[in-house]
This record gives sequence, C-alpha cells and structure tokens, in this order.
Amino acid sequence: MSFNLATILREPRRAHPDKPLCHLGELTFSYAQVDEISGRVAAALLGSGLRRGDKVAVQLPNVPQFLFTYFAILKAGLVMVPLNPLLRAGEIAYHLADSETRVLVTFELFADEAVRGAAGVEGVRTYVVNLPGSDRRPDGTRSYDELYAAQDTGEIAPTEADDTAVLLYTSGTTGRPKGAELTHFNLYMNCTVGGELFGFRDDDIGLAVLPLFHVFGLSSVLNVAVRYGGTIVLVPRFEVEPVVAAIERHRCTIFSGVPTMYFALVQADLTGRDLGSLRVGVSGGAAIPGEVIRAFEEKVPGVVILEGYGLSETASTTTFNISAEQRKVLSVGKPIWGVQTRVVDEADRPLPAGPDQVGEIVVRGHNVMKGYYRNPEATAEALRGGWFHTGDLGYADDDGYLFIVDRKKDMIIRGGFNVYPREVEEVLYAHPAVVEAAVIGRPDAKLGEEVVAVLSLTPDAQVTGEELVAWCRERLAAYKYPRQVRVVAELPKGPTGKLLKRELKKELG
Amino acid sequence: MSFNLATILREPRRAHPDKPLCHLGELTFSYAQVDEISGRVAAALLGSGLRRGDKVAVQLPNVPQFLFTYFAILKAGLVMVPLNPLLRAGEIAYHLADSETRVLVTFELFADEAVRGAAGVEGVRTYVVNLPGSDRRPDGTRSYDELYAAQDTGEIAPTEADDTAVLLYTSGTTGRPKGAELTHFNLYMNCTVGGELFGFRDDDIGLAVLPLFHVFGLSSVLNVAVRYGGTIVLVPRFEVEPVVAAIERHRCTIFSGVPTMYFALVQADLTGRDLGSLRVGVSGGAAIPGEVIRAFEEKVPGVVILEGYGLSETASTTTFNISAEQRKVLSVGKPIWGVQTRVVDEADRPLPAGPDQVGEIVVRGHNVMKGYYRNPEATAEALRGGWFHTGDLGYADDDGYLFIVDRKKDMIIRGGFNVYPREVEEVLYAHPAVVEAAVIGRPDAKLGEEVVAVLSLTPDAQVTGEELVAWCRERLAAYKYPRQVRVVAELPKGPTGKLLKRELKKELG
Repeated sequence: MSFNLATILREPRRAHPDKPLCHLGELTFSYAQVDEISGRVAAALLGSGLRRGDKVAVQLPNVPQFLFTYFAILKAGLVMVPLNPLLRAGEIAYHLADSETRVLVTFELFADEAVRGAAGVEGVRTYVVNLPGSDRRPDGTRSYDELYAAQDTGEIAPTEADDTAVLLYTSGTTGRPKGAELTHFNLYMNCTVGGELFGFRDDDIGLAVLPLFHVFGLSSVLNVAVRYGGTIVLVPRFEVEPVVAAIERHRCTIFSGVPTMYFALVQADLTGRDLGSLRVGVSGGAAIPGEVIRAFEEKVPGVVILEGYGLSETASTTTFNISAEQRKVLSVGKPIWGVQTRVVDEADRPLPAGPDQVGEIVVRGHNVMKGYYRNPEATAEALRGGWFHTGDLGYADDDGYLFIVDRKKDMIIRGGFNVYPREVEEVLYAHPAVVEAAVIGRPDAKLGEEVVAVLSLTPDAQVTGEELVAWCRERLAAYKYPRQVRVVAELPKGPTGKLLKRELKKELG
Repeated sequence: MSFNLATILREPRRAHPDKPLCHLGELTFSYAQVDEISGRVAAALLGSGLRRGDKVAVQLPNVPQFLFTYFAILKAGLVMVPLNPLLRAGEIAYHLADSETRVLVTFELFADEAVRGAAGVEGVRTYVVNLPGSDRRPDGTRSYDELYAAQDTGEIAPTEADDTAVLLYTSGTTGRPKGAELTHFNLYMNCTVGGELFGFRDDDIGLAVLPLFHVFGLSSVLNVAVRYGGTIVLVPRFEVEPVVAAIERHRCTIFSGVPTMYFALVQADLTGRDLGSLRVGVSGGAAIPGEVIRAFEEKVPGVVILEGYGLSETASTTTFNISAEQRKVLSVGKPIWGVQTRVVDEADRPLPAGPDQVGEIVVRGHNVMKGYYRNPEATAEALRGGWFHTGDLGYADDDGYLFIVDRKKDMIIRGGFNVYPREVEEVLYAHPAVVEAAVIGRPDAKLGEEVVAVLSLTPDAQVTGEELVAWCRERLAAYKYPRQVRVVAELPKGPTGKLLKRELKKELG
C-alpha cells in the first residue's frame, strides 16, 4: 500500500542505532541521531503548514544538514528539489518558480545570492544553515536551527512507491532546465541494486566528496551507504589533501568520483600516504581514460576502479562494470538488474551490436523517472515509445557492453559539472553585440574540458573578449561561463543552417 | 517509469538461460524455455483482444502451465486471478463475475465444474490444460495448446510499480471473498526481501508442494526461487511418499510447508530415506507447535525450521524468524525489512509489549495490498488509519517478537473470558497420543461458548477422553481447558492443509 524511501534510514537505525552514519571533520552523527533530528525537522516543516507533495529546495554542500533535511522531506511526504550552490540569482528564481517550491534551505556562504533569487518568487520561505559559531544571515530569512525545535513523532508518511520523492533539475538534451521526477521506488531500487554492484556491506565506509545535490552523489553515495547500513565521510569540496586525509583518518573503503578526481589523485604526490583501506573506486559522470584507471590502480594497490553510466533521469546508475574480472575498460558496462538499454537509429529502430553501429542510447526499467515536472511535451518526447532517450550516442558490443561515443551530443563536462552550451549561448545571444554564438568544450588536461565561446559580432561592435566573458560571469554559475572567447567572421553551418559544432571542435582540438 | 514483476524471470534468464527453472516428474523446463513459452502465451492473450489490466483467472494445480500462464499475464500487463481448484460452480461464478475476468485457464480434472461456473458469467473464454496424452475438454472450451501458437515478441509491458499484478481472493475476516489487489511492487519486494530471510541462493532447489494459487506458494516458493535464479520441483499435491521421493531425487534444499505437512513427515517412517540435502524448512499458514519443530529437526539433521507469518493482503511474508540462533519457538518472528507491525486495542490504540497485552495485529509497509477490488468500503475498513488490520490476535515481547494468539474470529469467549484455541491446542499436541488437534467453541446457553477439542490420535492410542481433559486441566487455567473431547479419524483440511475449523463448528453448532 505504501512505501517511503526513508525506510532505508529507519531499518539500519533499528538494527544498530549507535553506529556512525556520517562524519564531517570532528563531527559524527549516528543512525539514531540522524533519524531523530530528521524527525524533528520533518515535524517542523509539517508544522509550518507544508502539505504532502509540497516542494522544499535544498541548496547545501555536503554537510550533515543535507542529510537531516533530505530525510525530513521524505518522512514528511514532501519533495526535495536539490539545487547547485553555485547557481546565480536568476537561475535560482527560475528553479524555485518552475518547481513551485515553498521552502528554500540554503547555506550561509551563498545565502545572499539565494535570497536575491528567492525574492523574485512569491511565497518562498528561506532557512539558512550557518557555519559553526556564526549567525549571520540576510534579512527576511530564518535560522535553520528553528527547524530543530519540533518534537520527533517517529512518523513516516505513507507515500506510494510511485510518488515523487526528488525533483532533480537537469537540462536534458535541450532547452531550459527541467525537473526530472524521481519516485520513492526509482531511488529505492537504484541504491538497492546499485549497492549490490560493488558489494556494499555494513562495514563499508564511503567517501562522500561528490556533491549530494547531484544524482550520482545522492543515489550512489548517500543512499547506497544508508541502505546497506554503512558510514559516509562528508567532504564539502574536492581537493587532494583533505580527501586523502579523510580516507586515511576514517579508513574509507569506497571512493566515488568523476574522472577528473581520479586524475588529480594520480597526479598528486602520495608518498608516505596510506590509501590501503580503499577497495573500490566507483567512476561515473564522464568516460574515464584507461590510462587513468591503470595509473590509479598502480598507485593504490588493492583498489579496483569500476565505471558506470547514468543520468539524472535514470535515478543514477544505468549500466555498470561489476568487477575487475568482468569489466571492459572504455566501456560503461552492462545494464544493471531490471534495466534494459538499446541503441537506436533516428527513427527509434534498434541497431545491431558493433562499433560501427552508433546510435542514441535509450533506457527502460525501474530507474527511469516518472517524467519532467509540469512538462508533458518534453516528457512525451523523452519517453517516446516507452523508452527514455538519453541523447547520448554509443554502441553495444557482442557481449552487451555499452560504449559511449559522445556525451549528450554537445554537452561539456567541466571538472565533473555538466555545462549545457545552449544555456551559455542564450546568455551570449542576450548581449547586443552578439550575432551568432556557439559554446563548445576544448580539451583540458586538468578539467577534462574548458568552456569556449565562438562568436560572430555586429559590424560596429566595440566589445572586447574580456567584456563578453565578464557578461557571462555575472549571469552564470562559476563553472559555466566561458573562459575564452573567439571572434570569427562567420560560424560554420550545415545545409539546414544548423551550426556545425563538430567543425569548431576540430579546430580547437 | 515502469516496473514489471516479470523482470524476476527475465534477469536470471539472461544470466543462465539453460538452467532448470522447474521440474515436474520427468519434465524439466529451463529459464529460457519458460521465458519463451510465456512470451508466446502473452502474445496469444494480447492477440485475442485482451487489453492492459484485463483479468485472467488461473485455476491450475502445480504444473508448468501455471508458470507459463502467470508470467504470460505479467508480461502482457494483464492481472492474474488465481482460483482454488476445489471451488464449486457457484463459487467460481462469483469469483469470475466479481473480478470481471475475461479469460479462464483451467485443468482437465476440474474443467466440468469450472465450465458450469463460467456459464453463469458473460464473456468468459475458457482454456483447458489437458493431462498428458488427453484432449478431453467440455464443449465450448478451447485447448490451452492454442496459446502456444503465437510468436514470442520478447516484450514485457511497461506497467507501473503500483499497478495491480495479482488479484487474490480471500475471505479476510468477514463476508464474501474479496479480491486483494497485489501490485508488481508488493510482490517484487516480498520475494526479494523474503528470499534474503533464509538466504536463498541460485544453487538452491525448492520443493513446491504448497499450492501456487495461494500467496504462500506464489510469493515465498515460486517468486523467491525465480527472483534468485534457483530451481523448483513441482509436486501437485501433498502426500508423504511423492514428497520424500522428490526431495531425494532432486536434492531439494528448501522445503516450504504448513504445519500439517511437517507433522505428516514427522509421523512417517523415513527409515533409509535421505533428506540430507534439506537445509531450511519454511513454515507458515498456521502456528507450528514447538513439539513438531523439535521432532522434525531431530528426524532430519541439518535442517532448521523457520516460521513466518503473512496473509493474502500482505503479499505473503510479514514477520519471520530469520535463523536458528535468532528464532523464538512459538513466535512468528519479527517484521521483515520495510514492514512495521503493531498490536492495537479495539480503538486502534497501540498496546505495550507483554503477553498480557493481546490485541489485533496491524501492518504497514511495502507488502500491504493496494485494496480490495471494487470494494472501497471494505478497503477503507481494513486499511483504516493507514494500517492493514489482520484480524489476528497477538502480542509482542520486549525484543519485538510477535506471538499470534489466535484468529480474531476463532477466539472463544467462555463466560466472559477470552480463550485462545491455539494455547489449548499446544497443550494437546504435547500429549504423546495426539496427532491433530482443533479447539473450538460450542454454543452454550449459560456460558455463551464452551471449549471443545476435536482430536485425531495415533493408531495404537489407549487414552480416554477423560484422561485428555485431565491432561489439559493440569496445565491450563480453569476457564480454558476443554470440557469435552471428541476423537475423529481425520480432521477436515483445506487445500493448503490448513485445518477447517469452520467445518467442525458447523457440526457442533
């Protein structure tokens, strides 16, 4: 009759209440504590007038309050809208309005920008999580501490398995960000099946440096660890030294990261450091080069890197390389339990196996979102024929292993973050001097890709490249704006007038 | 977006297509065969005009066609209505009409009665499964073989997790049989969590003598075995010799049965027989006396009997004793993962722990049915307050173990005192001469009800009724011991081997 994803917290809490669920620096919270605190926050949210299905936006780094708020939202039968802390006011306003968010939980360090964003949207109440010892927050906001004041009832709302639990914004392949509706069932299945893929046990300790507001961190790191009664070590941002120190201190067994993180660790001097507790490195978010796998496994003996593939719309994991014996380097592995993938041509006809049979990857199974929130057209288009269309190009080999050829046609992945060229192009097009804009990724040793804009300008334009970079910087998150602007007389176009980004990429490459 | 329970067949079929899924006598069907044949039957059902959500009644004993039809129904996005082969025409008509069944699949041996039942209902097409070598079937019916003629498309309908997969008729606590709607999610969760309880592995071989049309056989025997890629040995009806022979021949590792089956095996002469392959005996459906557990485990060394508790409305397993170390004899164990139970008083207020705190057992979790089909009143009543009301009486101890005291409707009220028949039966079973015991209430002008025991005894028993009354009197409170003892050759039993107290009551009434 009912199923609530918060069950993944309640069950291990019953089995071992005093076991640490998470560490952050000197702080530790046990299962019982996270259960009880999230119960209080749930009661406070419901007490403040929220009703089943209402949206609560959470714009927090990897701090314990993320966990408290997340489980509170689930327990109360509300819906979490995770937001990237780097969003600018205009972007925040868009997300809050589109999702019909009623409560925003943000962090002291980006509260000013968040409040500017929320100001443009009616009826949003904002709570601020402070840094330890601080109580600074913008006017009109409330302290997150207020949410601790209610009494934990122990109740978990009897949501249905197919009810939406998380509304995860993603640009998908086209257009403005859309809210992918992930259900209690989607997320339960993904952490349950996902945790089995690398044999997550209750004595495993996962390093949580991937952002929890992203589906990879949320499902494969946080949910998996809680589902199987393990522990996570929160690290709010990736830097080599704190990450290595956290692994050493807590004897972490699982590291989950994007390729640039593995690359940074391979590059770092780890002489005298002890990463021997690690047994598995999970990689996703972008293709990990075979060189990096080999170098990392040589540097950290005993660890095996297992690569997977997934998207926001597929509640994270879709395919996975399940073991050192069964993996194929450069492949993202095979579909996980209960998930089917196909490679299809432009008319949605299945293609046979083989590297010369590149087509769009489509997915079906328990991991596929319910749809895009309040966007039936985009939902129908993405889910046409009963398959979710990833927009990613790839092929399958004879053994059923999937190979991604091109990530989401033109999407740029800069330091693990997705940058959708169209969004940046929209900002550039808004500048009076810009005639045509193409935003592409230039290969970059450190970040994977760097964002570059190629533009043509009006004949009388007086603007400099620096001024155009600054224009974008004011309007976009730090990871999105182009670091380089190139001005050309005309952009290359195909017969239909479509910009040929591939041509531009070749020139830059 | 979608989840279909047939995934539990498709996944092991991919992993090991040629492995046996089921044996029946000399017959064996592999995973690939069951997948392919059920695909053909699915295509035939859809080809005959059935649409998503239509009902197909299945009235079959434990034969491979049960599996073909069941998985075909799931794959086609239809709904299975399992029917007991022993139903009479009037009962069959009621079930077909109430469930709006469009297709009935029945068996040669009870086809005449089935057809008489179906005749009273409009628009039901009947297919008959024949015995090997026979093609006898009533006029107006079709041969099941027709359903093999279509082509397997390999398709599995994209049902939602919360869609109904099985409509399981049950009398519940009151009134005419009602169709409990079990969803793809209910049944998936139950076999997944259920199989973990006794560590079902892909090399396990389960004996399937419990009827598959009953929730215990369907979920805990068939679904569990398929979900974990194991094998089942079909035995169409319980008799000691064929069961023992099947265990020996196929080296069965798991025996699932009701207490009367264990009891029959305890009574049987097993000299020279080899049941050494068995590692777990799962017991459910009724309370298993401690005496029977001890005797069985002594007789079959290496086996452990684990008792669970569940109902049709809870997609089978609700509580379980997970291991020899953790079990408590006479308790049905603790709630399984993701399930909560409570003991409540008549005003639905939770009662504290303790044997003197007997109340109705209520259940909440992923296993609870969606509701009773087309019966909103009964649904609202059974699920009031968000908890399913089992109609069973029991209590919890301080460790959270549940003890079933009795069915609410079986409880005897003698002179204002509650007498729980099970407690009295336990005392009778402890007597060496008693084979089977049923304690019931006989209408009594003065006391309301009087306690009566109906017993069957060992062939060489010399004991008198008075002696048995005295035996109870020594061991039970004055208001509890039976004032009358009746000895019969055999107690009336239902198809699952459950004692039919209602029949006894009728005789006494």
